[in-house]
Amino acid sequence: MKETILERLRQGGHVSGEDLGRTIGISRTAIWKYIKELRHAGYQIDSSPNKGYLLVSAPDNPFPEEIKAGLNTRVLGKTVVFHKEVASTQDVAKSLAAQGADEGTVVVAETQSGGRGRIGRAWSSPSGGIYFSIILRPNIRPTEALRLPLIAGIAVAQAIAFLTELKPKLKWPNDIIINGRKAGGILTEMSAEVDRLDWVIIGIGLNVNTPPESFPSDIEDIATSLMKAEGEYIPRVKLLQHILRELESLLDIFHESGFEPLRTQWKELSNTIGETVKVISGSEEIIGHAIDIDSDGALILQKNDGTKERIIAGDVYIRKASNG
Amino acid sequence: MKETILERLRQGGHVSGEDLGRTIGISRTAIWKYIKELRHAGYQIDSSPNKGYLLVSAPDNPFPEEIKAGLNTRVLGKTVVFHKEVASTQDVAKSLAAQGADEGTVVVAETQSGGRGRIGRAWSSPSGGIYFSIILRPNIRPTEALRLPLIAGIAVAQAIAFLTELKPKLKWPNDIIINGRKAGGILTEMSAEVDRLDWVIIGIGLNVNTPPESFPSDIEDIATSLMKAEGEYIPRVKLLQHILRELESLLDIFHESGFEPLRTQWKELSNTIGETVKVISGSEEIIGHAIDIDSDGALILQKNDGTKERIIAGDVYIRKASNG
Repeated sequence: MKETILERLRQGGHVSGEDLGRTIGISRTAIWKYIKELRHAGYQIDSSPNKGYLLVSAPDNPFPEEIKAGLNTRVLGKTVVFHKEVASTQDVAKSLAAQGADEGTVVVAETQSGGRGRIGRAWSSPSGGIYFSIILRPNIRPTEALRLPLIAGIAVAQAIAFLTELKPKLKWPNDIIINGRKAGGILTEMSAEVDRLDWVIIGIGLNVNTPPESFPSDIEDIATSLMKAEGEYIPRVKLLQHILRELESLLDIFHESGFEPLRTQWKELSNTIGETVKVISGSEEIIGHAIDIDSDGALILQKNDGTKERIIAGDVYIRKASNG
Repeated sequence: MKETILERLRQGGHVSGEDLGRTIGISRTAIWKYIKELRHAGYQIDSSPNKGYLLVSAPDNPFPEEIKAGLNTRVLGKTVVFHKEVASTQDVAKSLAAQGADEGTVVVAETQSGGRGRIGRAWSSPSGGIYFSIILRPNIRPTEALRLPLIAGIAVAQAIAFLTELKPKLKWPNDIIINGRKAGGILTEMSAEVDRLDWVIIGIGLNVNTPPESFPSDIEDIATSLMKAEGEYIPRVKLLQHILRELESLLDIFHESGFEPLRTQWKELSNTIGETVKVISGSEEIIGHAIDIDSDGALILQKNDGTKERIIAGDVYIRKASNG
């Protein structure tokens, strides 16, 4: 009901309570009740006795009705599940996927109390960021899934570059880097038979308008937010919508033309290729020159002795100063 | 409590209700109540007024206390969860794994109402078979998981060969074949980040003492049971225990020495290598001579034009008569 009222108000101009009530088939008093609820949720709605209601501004919260308004995607975001606070959007999405949720379902939260990064690490999720998980059911093999976080990284970087003056970089395998600091990360999890994917969930956490003081002290020197880097407030809903649009078109390219064109894009956005890096993977430590990613999405290192090493998992530390 | 009573009775000889009660710290009447419950579950327990209770025989049901008695494994089967009837042991195991169940936990059922095979297919699970799922948390990459159903196949084949006169064969990727007919299957599912396994569940369904009339009519010509092939009743609990023991030692080999020695074992048990096969994978159909499995567990076909094709998923049909 609220969505229908909002939809009408979004068309612009004043709408009388009587007209609204007639269109929807409820009383003016009921309309008034919904308007109050919308105002409470952060919508600024003027009302004048003669002209009726006017939508002045919508809140920049990742509400389903805001994300879906003007989204224009084919699949991603057709269903959006919003939580004001949740332990982890990834866990909610997993449980929805296991129950058969459609491809493209997005779970988004204002804050997460137990946000997760790779390898079960914590992901600080204060208010002001965006935290969401997308359910995908791609017709690929589990062995091909390593490419998905790279593709999602391109989508995030392109969306940021579109909406801001920033030049986001990607650090293999899953970091969004702004001015050399981490502004976001991607966590990709899957459920599969050994030769067949059931579903994949791409979780994206981005420090958008996160106030610097809300970073935990152990990451304050290495983390940044888009707002801090850009110097102004970044509209979160617009950014989230852009990420969904970019990701949808990149996934279309992936399914039609394979990973090769995306591999090229990823490398252009990378802050990793061309650098000397240390990779820590489990108890192993490898130092080498990052020369490429291969067709699977693995990182290719050239070691001092000239031999090459293919890395499919690990934490990458860039050895020399980089502005990426 | 019942487990403690059984444990004492299994040591053999007569035990008086008074002794039993004293050891455990409950009354003779309470002991009598448990003895009645055990008899109801299929345990044959004699009682004589002067000598006490004597365990004559245990039922051949996959009860946790039966499976664990004398199992002697290090990890597999340390926890056993039994259901008389369940939709799918695989689904129960998945949910336990997601809640953090230990590696080696086994979920077993007398019958399944919604047993699953590969690619979401149904798996007929009437009483008399064994249906169980094992939770593993191996320190391998998702890309290596294709080897696990092959390793489980070897364990099943070796356990059958140990307990019967039968010569089980393995059809790539996951069928247990007796006298050219399917007697069992293996379903392997996993939850993972793209570069790190969270857990793997190996599901094993075996037609052990399944009466031929309980096969659905669409599989009666291609299915068999161990009892039908052997001509006599096969002890189910012993078989399940043997599978767990074999699998544990094969997994030890895998973690210590890699897949190579197991690859050799699998090929020796295979009815697929050396045959002309048709592989249907999605909408693709490939005909070729099955010449090998590679170090990932993929099937290698040599086609008529001499080129080789590497198959990582699909249904294999053997073209010429085979006694495997």
